[in-house]
Amino acid sequence: MRILVLGGDGYLGWPTALHLSAKGHDVGIADNFVRRQYDHELGVQSLVPIEPLSVRVRTWREHSGNDLPVYVGDLTDAEFTYRMLREFRPDAVVHFAEQRAAPYSMIDRAHAVYTQTNNVVGTLNLLYAIADTNPDIHLVKLGTMGEYGTPNIDIEEGWLDVVHKGRSDRVLYPKRPGSFYHLSKVHDSHNIEFCCRAWGLRATDLNQGVVYGQQTDQTALDDRLATRFDYDAVFGTVLNRFVILAALGRPLTVYGDGGQTRGLIDIRDTVECIRIAAENPPTAGEFRVFNQMTESMSILEIAKVVADLHPDAVQVEHLANPRVELESHYYNVTHTGLVELGLQPHLLSETLLTSLYAIADRYKHRAEVEKLRPTVEWRRAR
Amino acid sequence: MRILVLGGDGYLGWPTALHLSAKGHDVGIADNFVRRQYDHELGVQSLVPIEPLSVRVRTWREHSGNDLPVYVGDLTDAEFTYRMLREFRPDAVVHFAEQRAAPYSMIDRAHAVYTQTNNVVGTLNLLYAIADTNPDIHLVKLGTMGEYGTPNIDIEEGWLDVVHKGRSDRVLYPKRPGSFYHLSKVHDSHNIEFCCRAWGLRATDLNQGVVYGQQTDQTALDDRLATRFDYDAVFGTVLNRFVILAALGRPLTVYGDGGQTRGLIDIRDTVECIRIAAENPPTAGEFRVFNQMTESMSILEIAKVVADLHPDAVQVEHLANPRVELESHYYNVTHTGLVELGLQPHLLSETLLTSLYAIADRYKHRAEVEKLRPTVEWRRAR
Repeated sequence: MRILVLGGDGYLGWPTALHLSAKGHDVGIADNFVRRQYDHELGVQSLVPIEPLSVRVRTWREHSGNDLPVYVGDLTDAEFTYRMLREFRPDAVVHFAEQRAAPYSMIDRAHAVYTQTNNVVGTLNLLYAIADTNPDIHLVKLGTMGEYGTPNIDIEEGWLDVVHKGRSDRVLYPKRPGSFYHLSKVHDSHNIEFCCRAWGLRATDLNQGVVYGQQTDQTALDDRLATRFDYDAVFGTVLNRFVILAALGRPLTVYGDGGQTRGLIDIRDTVECIRIAAENPPTAGEFRVFNQMTESMSILEIAKVVADLHPDAVQVEHLANPRVELESHYYNVTHTGLVELGLQPHLLSETLLTSLYAIADRYKHRAEVEKLRPTVEWRRAR
Repeated sequence: MRILVLGGDGYLGWPTALHLSAKGHDVGIADNFVRRQYDHELGVQSLVPIEPLSVRVRTWREHSGNDLPVYVGDLTDAEFTYRMLREFRPDAVVHFAEQRAAPYSMIDRAHAVYTQTNNVVGTLNLLYAIADTNPDIHLVKLGTMGEYGTPNIDIEEGWLDVVHKGRSDRVLYPKRPGSFYHLSKVHDSHNIEFCCRAWGLRATDLNQGVVYGQQTDQTALDDRLATRFDYDAVFGTVLNRFVILAALGRPLTVYGDGGQTRGLIDIRDTVECIRIAAENPPTAGEFRVFNQMTESMSILEIAKVVADLHPDAVQVEHLANPRVELESHYYNVTHTGLVELGLQPHLLSETLLTSLYAIADRYKHRAEVEKLRPTVEWRRAR
């Protein structure tokens, strides 16, 4: 298949592009490099050194013989988006090209507006470009488990069968997102579902859990193929942050009680889920949703796993929660769709021991400890 | 109370400002006049001649002795929005200031992006301005019944009590919006609900039915106080379009079978609903939703009422439906919240006979018949 990976220079976009290429697909990459710009804005950098995209692509060609054509531009530029689809003629588009950090979206008004405009307008342009160039293109869109919030009922895969006053309907699962970033993804999902319904587009919405890990079979081949590893409090996911804190001999910083539960997924499972989704497209007009996660744990449980398996003694420290969220709640998620299509999940405990501790140990001299402390506060008024 | 009416130069914003002023409130008006610009873009104009806002405000002062301070600017300009709230110091903000036509949002990609950006960013700026200047300000936000779509279960007022696999939760009512315009309102509702939850803001979301009528007690006092009457296929609501078609002796153009059902509301009830909502604010942190409608009818039933009550013979014509929507569906709406607070609804049949036919007859010489035909097509691909 011809697969275009939007945001293909990012933490997950890059390993996804390599994985799809290794599996025999013709892969193209689009990026505007704004993720690298956020690093400069926030004064942080990836724990693991990363090469410019041009070097990455050249290195992959050396290893695999495969080309990865690159499109440099911004999805909010409709002309760019249309031209790219016309030139590359993809069968599937994997869409990672969004601002992806909840804390970043909560910095202030300008960052909230930027996040929602960037994500919603980019995706709208993409939907129009697909409809106008080839409506058979399968849109594989990355969303997040955080869109659901923490409902008191089971979280189903995107849709919910409701019985109300003796009548029934199948409705989009009602979501309770916890930041302007999460809200942007909910807006996207509504826009995409409408385009499936009104225009007959086909889309897979992947509500992904918190991703951990840094290596895939392909990125491990060569240091120049490494993907980024964010450990800062804005872009670092909770597990990656805990691992580097452990490596530094610092306490693991749990927000609040730590009872808040998260779906998790290994980076190798993420790239495999994308492959499975892309190779098994939904029918025309279908808005298909998968919950892309393999385990769930509370933040405190995650901290305990990281601490217990680590060779050194590791403390856990509770910080005042900068977020507005329930710290004690029901959490039960259906995530059978991808397993039924063949996903074989990795387990957190194994990844920590075989790869993550070693990476953190190798690069811990690059970590700036103060960047691990949360600085973005959800509360404003009152 | 001090009440700021955003979009106060529009079809409903202007009569709302007058009604609130007549009821003793201190009313301010904000507008960027973009609604008048759409007229030039589409080559249409209000059936009833309307005065510039400056003349309207002066005329109202002559009749009532009340001033209506005017803020000219755009909510997407955050500096303007903050300055206005700081200067006027409202107790409540009534937010009509959005692009409000589904067909306009479906013209093409640029109009879809404009609609969502304008509506979502304007509302985001307003939420931040409220949180940062006075979080006690009550946001009264106009939404639409069209956000719900046509679910096979009863439509409740914004929230739904769900029982699923033996557990229960109260969730935002799951919506199935039918255009990029309707989607923009759904996005707004999610953003506002989050700000109530995270920041303790107070908001009332009014999901309004199709509004009909052109006169309120105040606008009827003087021709210079008239509000606009849109009869074109882009901005004209279905009932107002039917009335002018009847006046012109033309067939009433029903899209498809006409079985699609709509909630309706008289313009006089709209302005009264706003007053009731503003004078009865929700508690801090509450996201309150009312379904602001008084009757429901299918499009064909509406056409029959307009035809049957009209003094002349009126035909009904079916056109291919340019929209993607169910033409035969269940529709049962809860709308008790505003009635419990005192709303006494007008009935369509009475308004037609006492006011609407006469207005259409008086101004029918200004109508351009070809502007009544739908030109915007929902379908794209396939």
